[in-house]
Amino acid sequence: MSLPKTMKAILKSERAPGLTLVDDYPVPRVGHGEALIKVKAGSICGTDLHIYNWDEWAQHRLKPPFVVGHEIAGEVVDIAPDVDSVKVGDYVSLESHVVCNHCYYCRTGREDLCENTKIIGVDRDGGFADYIALPAQNAWKNPDSMPLHIAVLEENLGNAIHCAMAQDVGAKFVLVTGCGPVGLMAINVAKAAGARAVFASDVSHYRLDLARKMGADRVIDAANEDVVGIVREMTYHEGVDVLLEMSGAPSAINQGFAALKGGGAAALLGLAPGPFTFDLNENVIFKGALVRGVVGRQLWETWYQARGLLEAGALNLNPLVTHRFAMTDFKAAYETFMSGQSGKIMLIP
Amino acid sequence: MSLPKTMKAILKSERAPGLTLVDDYPVPRVGHGEALIKVKAGSICGTDLHIYNWDEWAQHRLKPPFVVGHEIAGEVVDIAPDVDSVKVGDYVSLESHVVCNHCYYCRTGREDLCENTKIIGVDRDGGFADYIALPAQNAWKNPDSMPLHIAVLEENLGNAIHCAMAQDVGAKFVLVTGCGPVGLMAINVAKAAGARAVFASDVSHYRLDLARKMGADRVIDAANEDVVGIVREMTYHEGVDVLLEMSGAPSAINQGFAALKGGGAAALLGLAPGPFTFDLNENVIFKGALVRGVVGRQLWETWYQARGLLEAGALNLNPLVTHRFAMTDFKAAYETFMSGQSGKIMLIP
Amino acid sequence: MSLPKTMKAILKSERAPGLTLVDDYPVPRVGHGEALIKVKAGSICGTDLHIYNWDEWAQHRLKPPFVVGHEIAGEVVDIAPDVDSVKVGDYVSLESHVVCNHCYYCRTGREDLCENTKIIGVDRDGGFADYIALPAQNAWKNPDSMPLHIAVLEENLGNAIHCAMAQDVGAKFVLVTGCGPVGLMAINVAKAAGARAVFASDVSHYRLDLARKMGADRVIDAANEDVVGIVREMTYHEGVDVLLEMSGAPSAINQGFAALKGGGAAALLGLAPGPFTFDLNENVIFKGALVRGVVGRQLWETWYQARGLLEAGALNLNPLVTHRFAMTDFKAAYETFMSGQSGKIMLIP
Amino acid sequence: MSLPKTMKAILKSERAPGLTLVDDYPVPRVGHGEALIKVKAGSICGTDLHIYNWDEWAQHRLKPPFVVGHEIAGEVVDIAPDVDSVKVGDYVSLESHVVCNHCYYCRTGREDLCENTKIIGVDRDGGFADYIALPAQNAWKNPDSMPLHIAVLEENLGNAIHCAMAQDVGAKFVLVTGCGPVGLMAINVAKAAGARAVFASDVSHYRLDLARKMGADRVIDAANEDVVGIVREMTYHEGVDVLLEMSGAPSAINQGFAALKGGGAAALLGLAPGPFTFDLNENVIFKGALVRGVVGRQLWETWYQARGLLEAGALNLNPLVTHRFAMTDFKAAYETFMSGQSGKIMLIP
Repeated sequence: MSLPKTMKAILKSERAPGLTLVDDYPVPRVGHGEALIKVKAGSICGTDLHIYNWDEWAQHRLKPPFVVGHEIAGEVVDIAPDVDSVKVGDYVSLESHVVCNHCYYCRTGREDLCENTKIIGVDRDGGFADYIALPAQNAWKNPDSMPLHIAVLEENLGNAIHCAMAQDVGAKFVLVTGCGPVGLMAINVAKAAGARAVFASDVSHYRLDLARKMGADRVIDAANEDVVGIVREMTYHEGVDVLLEMSGAPSAINQGFAALKGGGAAALLGLAPGPFTFDLNENVIFKGALVRGVVGRQLWETWYQARGLLEAGALNLNPLVTHRFAMTDFKAAYETFMSGQSGKIMLIP
Repeated sequence: MSLPKTMKAILKSERAPGLTLVDDYPVPRVGHGEALIKVKAGSICGTDLHIYNWDEWAQHRLKPPFVVGHEIAGEVVDIAPDVDSVKVGDYVSLESHVVCNHCYYCRTGREDLCENTKIIGVDRDGGFADYIALPAQNAWKNPDSMPLHIAVLEENLGNAIHCAMAQDVGAKFVLVTGCGPVGLMAINVAKAAGARAVFASDVSHYRLDLARKMGADRVIDAANEDVVGIVREMTYHEGVDVLLEMSGAPSAINQGFAALKGGGAAALLGLAPGPFTFDLNENVIFKGALVRGVVGRQLWETWYQARGLLEAGALNLNPLVTHRFAMTDFKAAYETFMSGQSGKIMLIP
Repeated sequence: MSLPKTMKAILKSERAPGLTLVDDYPVPRVGHGEALIKVKAGSICGTDLHIYNWDEWAQHRLKPPFVVGHEIAGEVVDIAPDVDSVKVGDYVSLESHVVCNHCYYCRTGREDLCENTKIIGVDRDGGFADYIALPAQNAWKNPDSMPLHIAVLEENLGNAIHCAMAQDVGAKFVLVTGCGPVGLMAINVAKAAGARAVFASDVSHYRLDLARKMGADRVIDAANEDVVGIVREMTYHEGVDVLLEMSGAPSAINQGFAALKGGGAAALLGLAPGPFTFDLNENVIFKGALVRGVVGRQLWETWYQARGLLEAGALNLNPLVTHRFAMTDFKAAYETFMSGQSGKIMLIP
Repeated sequence: MSLPKTMKAILKSERAPGLTLVDDYPVPRVGHGEALIKVKAGSICGTDLHIYNWDEWAQHRLKPPFVVGHEIAGEVVDIAPDVDSVKVGDYVSLESHVVCNHCYYCRTGREDLCENTKIIGVDRDGGFADYIALPAQNAWKNPDSMPLHIAVLEENLGNAIHCAMAQDVGAKFVLVTGCGPVGLMAINVAKAAGARAVFASDVSHYRLDLARKMGADRVIDAANEDVVGIVREMTYHEGVDVLLEMSGAPSAINQGFAALKGGGAAALLGLAPGPFTFDLNENVIFKGALVRGVVGRQLWETWYQARGLLEAGALNLNPLVTHRFAMTDFKAAYETFMSGQSGKIMLIP
């Protein structure tokens, strides 16, 4: 096939805030075991803001220049000769974690903890570009009928599924603390999986409104309402069976644990700004609680779960995608995302 | 309080087929730890037919005379002085298994396997009568708003929940073999818990029609269609992740296992007529399958799950109750149930 | 049978430090469902020191006067007429938690979280006395051949088993932080259950010496050695699969989590002095760790596990019982226990 | 490096019973991702007898000519340029299943069920030869201090571990039906993991004697003793918590289930000669049993477990290796194995 030599790409080009759009980045070629994807859409994630803003984490981790963007859907346009898991023409979403396949974690079904992970758009070239090459196993085949905004959400949906389905939520009371995109999708997943009721807390009215649209039975304005009191009242004073912590805010984490029932389960995904004062006795030990740290997705179980829930029609992710921008308008897109007045934002090459 | 001395009751009075309606059965009095229930409704179960027909199992197990009926809803009208788990006026459904609370199974959370279980309407007086007395822990408090036909179904619903939620069905393909009442409710439960799709097989058109109403994505006429072929076709030739076996028919059991995917889980509830030729190699070992025998309900986890799913509005059991009879018309009720042209049948005192 | 009217008992008689030995305390009589135990031996637990010292927890929780002591072995000398789980003459150990049997937790196999628990020797009369009456289900029958020091340890051993067997330790690296009696027994249990190696940390040489005797493969002096560094070195720089936290010391908790492998499991039993600065990101989330709060024992699964391990001869608890005192010498016994230069101390009536 | 062009190898050269030793088989060269192993020892497995005897299974599955032998230990003598999981000089045991890494099973941690598995010595060249080449991920690095007879047993030990550790055996009664090599190792593993007691049944005195040496608390001669009665007697009439079925004999399978306690777990590894009459009601449903089909090993969890147990010194596999033959004496070796008067038999090139 005939591919152009160069392409448009959004680069983290320097060790400084901001991003740069270029139109002469080399189109990658497939290496052993790889597929080349023509990008149809990307979406912006919280991690992308850290990269844009060049914060401490970014300064520590990143090695510019590289193409940013890790939530990507597109079409396979080339494969290496030894690839048989996808073929040219396949409509795919991308798993952003390129794992090593041979460490202890990869060898025991915990690829989410691979000690050699490289993330596209972070540790290697990402997909806010016309093309991206990556291991074929990272290209997840979608049915042709899947809307593009769903395909681009799938990677991030995986975090929500990993967190929400890490413990049984069927017939259980669930509290989601933090209604960013992953929290919002977790609400939707917990409802699909038969939760008795899902409560959702946040401090943003915009997000609480989205939480309601995503299926929360009761949204709680953590800035003005008593989260723990409301949850207790709505659960016959028992508390919730399951806490899905998505905010990383110490106050929300503490509220979440205070609202958790004895014997309850907590899945923690939101990252706190750092260590903070935590009451292990009351939050974990006296409750006989089960607390699970959740990072990334389970490769590839989570993708199969996403396929199953989407195929069942059990999810309604439409309210989540609130904006679409051309990739050339990436600045407006990032600024909109930073305003807090958005759900997920799509970028179209 | 003032209670009548005698009451109407349907008795298994002799070691022979049939039942007898009497109106002079003594109204029971509460013993230590017990509650007295005024019966509002009962429903007929497959076990009741064995009792009616006086088959081999019945001849072996039963000791007439006793009051029949174990699926019961009613109101608490008296309690022993030491009872505080329910109070007079409570609207309750009854757990039919009176367990000993001190055997190994009761002491380790497996009351479903209690080695001293007495079942109401089988081993001790049941509830097809004006009143029944039983341990207060067997009376499960319902919200006053619960329709009577739901309250009477709850006990049997528990079997369906125990079976369907014994393994994860969220985002999974599920096959229910056998669409009697428990199978029908299991379809509903699996859908509520986020199954990718639920397939249901039976040989009765009447039941398959109910299966469709209870939410099955595809019903399969096992008498005229190729169950395994259809399941494979609808699962991208993978087979189902979960088999819920509710029929006890060897042919259905074999079809179910043949349709089960490698690594799949099977929950077996239907009782076969006896030992039969079974291929452990192909059905279990080569598949690396997980097979679970399911008997009764988990006391009391299943009841909490039922409450949660009902409260969530995740179930629709209405299509299941197809007939209502006065208790005095019990013969017509039993005959209708035996015709195979019914769902659940309610008896009203 | 003929019982004396009064007996010797160690009382918490006033809202102040100390205990009082009396010889005219009324011998209790069995109530409904109860058994009366003639005490053969007791042992002192950390909780007993809180009671003795009348610390903040004690002032908040206790309502003197009452008999202290909750680790008890003895002989059944009377039972209520409705009791059939034990009989007169049985040699028993006592489960110290008297649970309600009807709350949500009791009804779902989590009696360890019963919301109405009364602990003997804390909330109701205990067993540092000639006799104690309590629900018959709390009397655990031992084989007659069991040495008395083992029978008296069984209750506390249950905590160690609950903690150590809450997750799989077979073929795993295990770190026990804190070598008090429960930590010491957890070392023994983890070894019995096939741990790859057990490391144990403490700041007391006396306790580290006992840890070695109880089977620790490597003891670590946390005051003078680098716990994390040693663990990493002895685990091929991977860290441990399982952390059993028994100390409640924030420094030890942090060391334990720092030594935990990605995907590892932590069971937390030791109570911290209060909230402290904890790094949820590094300790739990990035590791994808599973953290379990452990309180009390699983009733009654843990007792069955204890029976199984003891019967197998898989445990060696002998080194743990370092002192024996007559109950009349209770002050010397408590002082020895407070010195930190002891394992478990037995009290003989 | 310099390798010979040809080597000795034991071939299944024709579609007929028997094997052929040749000395001019081409030494394999490493392909992409592969390692070349100089074979130090092999051992004979039941599967090898099927191949030797050219039975129905063999006729159906095999495509001669190929090198036989799949239980192999040796030294890495060459690696492809892209291999970094092992290096030249490593002392390794071989995982015999070459899995595809991209099917649903491989992608979800169930490589034991890979639908594209190729087994060395069955579907591709095996290791009863001077050299074998296979994917580097199939070469498991051992410590240099490991005795050769342990290294050669590791692959087969994995089956025993997979089966015995598929469910919790700590503090549980265990019955192993069938004392072939995998059954014998399962006895040892169950003891190491803290079983309350392990009972072992077989019809061969030779094997029962080995079972005793491997740690069985009671061996049962199924030809002359009442397996179920003895198990019940030794378990206080409760039955065993765990059945490890290793024989494939319908009579033993039925005895095993009859001896299984309510709520017990059964892991089935032995393959029956075909379908047979089985009582699902009594064996599985009424018992509320959990039955697991076990095939192969968990890749690679089982290997890590083997490492852990061996490193702990928790296993004693020495009694199991009863014979050693030079590879040139393979006929004597096979005949000895077929006599039933042997444990594992090693072949040395």
